[in-house]
Amino acid sequence: MRIAILIFDGLTALDAIGPYEVLSRLPEAEVTFVGAAVGSIRTDTGALGLQVDATIEEVPSPEVFLVPGGKGNRPLLADERVLDWVRSAHETSAWTTSVCTGSLVLGAAGVLEGKRATSHWAYRDRLAEFGATPVAERVAQDGKIMTAAGVAAGIDMALTLAARIAGDEIAKAIQLGIEYDPDPPFDTGSPEKAGPGLVDLIHQAEDRG
Amino acid sequence: MRIAILIFDGLTALDAIGPYEVLSRLPEAEVTFVGAAVGSIRTDTGALGLQVDATIEEVPSPEVFLVPGGKGNRPLLADERVLDWVRSAHETSAWTTSVCTGSLVLGAAGVLEGKRATSHWAYRDRLAEFGATPVAERVAQDGKIMTAAGVAAGIDMALTLAARIAGDEIAKAIQLGIEYDPDPPFDTGSPEKAGPGLVDLIHQAEDRG
Repeated sequence: MRIAILIFDGLTALDAIGPYEVLSRLPEAEVTFVGAAVGSIRTDTGALGLQVDATIEEVPSPEVFLVPGGKGNRPLLADERVLDWVRSAHETSAWTTSVCTGSLVLGAAGVLEGKRATSHWAYRDRLAEFGATPVAERVAQDGKIMTAAGVAAGIDMALTLAARIAGDEIAKAIQLGIEYDPDPPFDTGSPEKAGPGLVDLIHQAEDRG
Repeated sequence: MRIAILIFDGLTALDAIGPYEVLSRLPEAEVTFVGAAVGSIRTDTGALGLQVDATIEEVPSPEVFLVPGGKGNRPLLADERVLDWVRSAHETSAWTTSVCTGSLVLGAAGVLEGKRATSHWAYRDRLAEFGATPVAERVAQDGKIMTAAGVAAGIDMALTLAARIAGDEIAKAIQLGIEYDPDPPFDTGSPEKAGPGLVDLIHQAEDRG
């Protein structure tokens, strides 16, 4: 099963790597990191280079494709080459997926029109610009479109997707294999739990970013 | 603050990228991915290339360093060049850390002698070979050594470490920024929760790997 993960300069690494770690463990999975050009791209912090192994045109019809987020994806909202690929891949995909602000790219391509979708909490409302209905869910499914909330939510989405694709037992085994038994030291992972002070801090950081 | 993350052929990507995503958001963080040679390495699935930006000798005294796991780290247990770097970096580090079987490398370097440490559940007992006391904790701290359980546990460790380094408020804000409000679709992230059937499945997969 061909799984394409789009990467680009300025992506948030965990958006892509969380789901990769889950989906690459599916039986028969063949994950390919695709992008504008074969070679190295840098993540949003500048501190990490990831390898693009194939151009998007070289993987036109993946069964699953994933668009991650990160401030580097804003130029993609007007990049007709990428948006054409998304539209075309979506025609034949079994699953069209995104993590974090990756859903803005799906939206700009037009594939979220009339669909329920989610995104990073700080950007979720923007989905309405593309005719989508923003929902405050960690993993939102509408037909074959599955969108995840911010960054770390991609792991939850990928396990949900793994279960849809290969059944619950395989997904449960993958969860055990990656020892995903989360125990965060704080309970501040959502704006509701974190409170307005921390929320303002993140809004300021995002505006600077 | 210089943070070095060791990467090598055959690493498990999420072991490194989970903590990277947290630690790179610390104020003044300067994360460098180090390895045997500058250039590209491939992860354990073969499906992803990551960039080594500096040799280990070029970053001899990071304030924080992290050794990830993955079947590709077994050769490192007898790689004197890497073990020398670990020993030397540990002498001056503020924090010496590992995720998953990365703790076996710390052990082989001798820095876990007499220390409490953890690892992926399937490998944890091996820590005793290096004079460490294996503990079934998701994040184990002994002095300045912080080790995480398997793969996804690196995110919990990194948030714990972020709080030690920069205080709770910063760590809480990072957790909100990456929307780490975990909600896995199953509750099979530990051997106790998953039960013997799934545990056997993973042991078999690890033996093949």
